[in-house]
Amino acid sequence: MQDALNRLNLAITEVVDLQRAAALLEWDEQVYMPPGGAAVHGEMVATIRKTAHQKLTADDVGSLLGALEPALPALPPDSDEHRIISVTARDYRKAVRVPAAFVAEQALAVSAAQHAWIEARSRSEFAHFQPHLEQLIDLKRRYIDFFPRGAHPYDTLLDEFEPGITTADVQAIFAILRPRQVALIRAIADRPQVDDQFLRLPYSDSEMWAFGDEVISAFGFDWTRGRQDKSVHPFATGIGPDDVRITTRAVSGQPLSLFFGTAHETGHALYEQGISSAFRRSLLGDGASLGVHESQSRLWENLVARSQPFWQHFFPRLQQRFPSQLGNVTAEQFYRGINKVHRSLIRVESDEATYNLHIMLRVEMEIAMLSGEVATHDLPDLWNTRMQEYLGLMPDSDAGGILQDIHWSIGAMGYFATYTLGNLISVQLWNAFGRVQPDRDTRMAQGDFSTLLEWLRTNVHQFGRKYRPQELVERTTGSRIDPEPYLEYLETKYGRIYGL
Amino acid sequence: MQDALNRLNLAITEVVDLQRAAALLEWDEQVYMPPGGAAVHGEMVATIRKTAHQKLTADDVGSLLGALEPALPALPPDSDEHRIISVTARDYRKAVRVPAAFVAEQALAVSAAQHAWIEARSRSEFAHFQPHLEQLIDLKRRYIDFFPRGAHPYDTLLDEFEPGITTADVQAIFAILRPRQVALIRAIADRPQVDDQFLRLPYSDSEMWAFGDEVISAFGFDWTRGRQDKSVHPFATGIGPDDVRITTRAVSGQPLSLFFGTAHETGHALYEQGISSAFRRSLLGDGASLGVHESQSRLWENLVARSQPFWQHFFPRLQQRFPSQLGNVTAEQFYRGINKVHRSLIRVESDEATYNLHIMLRVEMEIAMLSGEVATHDLPDLWNTRMQEYLGLMPDSDAGGILQDIHWSIGAMGYFATYTLGNLISVQLWNAFGRVQPDRDTRMAQGDFSTLLEWLRTNVHQFGRKYRPQELVERTTGSRIDPEPYLEYLETKYGRIYGL
Repeated sequence: MQDALNRLNLAITEVVDLQRAAALLEWDEQVYMPPGGAAVHGEMVATIRKTAHQKLTADDVGSLLGALEPALPALPPDSDEHRIISVTARDYRKAVRVPAAFVAEQALAVSAAQHAWIEARSRSEFAHFQPHLEQLIDLKRRYIDFFPRGAHPYDTLLDEFEPGITTADVQAIFAILRPRQVALIRAIADRPQVDDQFLRLPYSDSEMWAFGDEVISAFGFDWTRGRQDKSVHPFATGIGPDDVRITTRAVSGQPLSLFFGTAHETGHALYEQGISSAFRRSLLGDGASLGVHESQSRLWENLVARSQPFWQHFFPRLQQRFPSQLGNVTAEQFYRGINKVHRSLIRVESDEATYNLHIMLRVEMEIAMLSGEVATHDLPDLWNTRMQEYLGLMPDSDAGGILQDIHWSIGAMGYFATYTLGNLISVQLWNAFGRVQPDRDTRMAQGDFSTLLEWLRTNVHQFGRKYRPQELVERTTGSRIDPEPYLEYLETKYGRIYGL
Repeated sequence: MQDALNRLNLAITEVVDLQRAAALLEWDEQVYMPPGGAAVHGEMVATIRKTAHQKLTADDVGSLLGALEPALPALPPDSDEHRIISVTARDYRKAVRVPAAFVAEQALAVSAAQHAWIEARSRSEFAHFQPHLEQLIDLKRRYIDFFPRGAHPYDTLLDEFEPGITTADVQAIFAILRPRQVALIRAIADRPQVDDQFLRLPYSDSEMWAFGDEVISAFGFDWTRGRQDKSVHPFATGIGPDDVRITTRAVSGQPLSLFFGTAHETGHALYEQGISSAFRRSLLGDGASLGVHESQSRLWENLVARSQPFWQHFFPRLQQRFPSQLGNVTAEQFYRGINKVHRSLIRVESDEATYNLHIMLRVEMEIAMLSGEVATHDLPDLWNTRMQEYLGLMPDSDAGGILQDIHWSIGAMGYFATYTLGNLISVQLWNAFGRVQPDRDTRMAQGDFSTLLEWLRTNVHQFGRKYRPQELVERTTGSRIDPEPYLEYLETKYGRIYGL
């Protein structure tokens, strides 16, 4: 058996090397590629991803797995060997179900749809994108047909991003979140608004960048195994645990956006830097899921960097960098200002109180699209009705409504729910850490994040994809993914700020 | 036939995509990689290069070539079709001769040798590197045995970098260059030395960088299809013609080094940007050879950017950037200063008058090593004797002598001659351009390089690897590679500067 496992691991190293290379090329495309390089980058990445797929679905991988799987029952279920075999088998069996011709057909449809979406968004005209969306939905239905039928066809799409989570799970969570989040933001809207005039002043981007560097160094970002650059949209990408890259960007009129981008992406990066080196060239060497990944970014962005104790330590440092803008502002005023609730039509501008409502709207629409409950040309109306219902806002254009997100145009359906799952998990982890570290907030107020990072390393990061999301959350927090702690956190935090 | 050719081209696109991806990863390694990323980069590049090799040597490539080669005699020999088939066949047949196990063995030996070389150089102790060099020479002998025996075993190594050039060709060229270059530098040493005190002052790197950008924009570097960054050693890399990247670096005490690095690498970059887009995803989409590539870098660096007419236009612009350093210097003084002949022990610090002597020394040693005429432990003595003979200098350490270059430690033997061939070809091309463009120097003195670039595009760049080096030089200049024009150029240039 050991020999077969060694051979499997060796075969998989090449799959992983190629996937990592594609990730680095995609990083380069967003960060340093000259504009003329778009075509050659597209070609390189397509060939590398195709080759990785060929190597993962190669006959010898199949026969090695065939030899190894019968040994699984005899292995301890939590052993690395067991998980390497079972995760590799899961990836292999998913990959072999989807014919290469389908992948190529979908890649062509996505390429056309993405161009159409850009055009449709610039013209604010959903009708221009609608036939492409129709085609992508049809492709998703065909994709789902390659897999065993679950309780709901949408399950197959969710499973891509959040293994083991079903449509029913997500719907049950949303049913709890929706009424309380809607009630919360209505209550906030009735209260006197928070003053954040000091955030309307000009701030130097380079000074804010330097502040971000100072903060993430304190978080424990390892600069010998990572770097930060600028890009149009912030993102994090791990080329394995020893080369993890983050980006951020300045947003005009939102001076803290650059810093919160850095803090968010650092959460992703700390996860990647913390994955066990034993999994470095295996299929376990990634985050457990997009939701678990998002729990890390949200934890550092929101539970740490939007908290009172954090600013107790860092606000005087920020004041030193921006004396004219913040010299007469108190830490408490600053904390309230950066946590002001703005109902916004745009997801990426939304705050903690409203974010999940944006997500629910999209996920509900995806489920409706896929089941055929709603025709694609009726989608803008549905969008606008729900937006009014959840946030009390009415989009005045398709561009600021249904066309705002890139996801559908790139064929990503089933993805949005992971943002909300990440929010919920972040608070569950935060509370679990608080239980073992009662002076959590005191340490944070001293700028000391070492025990937090250590705890996350031990309980989350190191495992990579060894455990599935629900399994990992349950091991670490004692509960499965649960909306209640998140709602309590939100209601407490905003209750204090708005005096509810 | 057209169908087989289409299928061959399609198969080769993946080989090219992978090679380009490896080149971009290597660029990243030199420019932006955090230090911890070294291992994962090594793994990614090794897997990609191995996979590209597998795809090039795949059975279907062999059988398509087997079907296409009989059609060659019926195709016009200068047609793209003919050359695509014949160049692909040449690459394929070379690749299949070398067993994968040998490639892996050599990669391991190189990795160990490179570490040993770094250590040996830092200790200045050749004996530490000697056993590794011995092993690499042995590997080169075994490599040569995979190929049909030429007139000299070294021919096989030369052919890697300069297809069609033989050891006899190189030796014949050196026999002409050597005595006249030695005589030239002896004559220069007897003359009053040039004053270059103004180059001993501090210059701002960022201002020099901006000057370089100004100059290469005038050369015609296409910034939409390229970029410039900093790295430890300057280099150029083409990720296809639409994404060509150059680097340069500041050298303490040599203020113009940053600019000449930029000019040199821009010569390489203009070549890559100018290769016909018809060859973009084929094996023809690279430079004809390292020598031809070097002819382009040397042409822009030396024949343009170290010339009097160039500085007639650009010296006033440089003066504006550095008024305190250059305000009282004339263009003529500056021209003489930057062309001052320094005999140096170090190849990369050497000037036009001495450079080829450094190369000859290395190539002669490689030939001697390979033929077994000299034992490896006698190499430092041979190095020092020749250095004394050619340049009148005696290294005081191995680090400043035989251990100065990285090439042998990375398994590159047969490479050095291409630097000299590039010098020779650069002058042949320059003269050929001067014959069709008699006001060449006047235009250059006006900062107009458009006809030069256009001529190089038409006569050199567009062809990529379509023609072999000798064939290309003969088509473009009417002669084969010839040392005479280079010697005339050197003797005229330095004759004027030193009053010989």
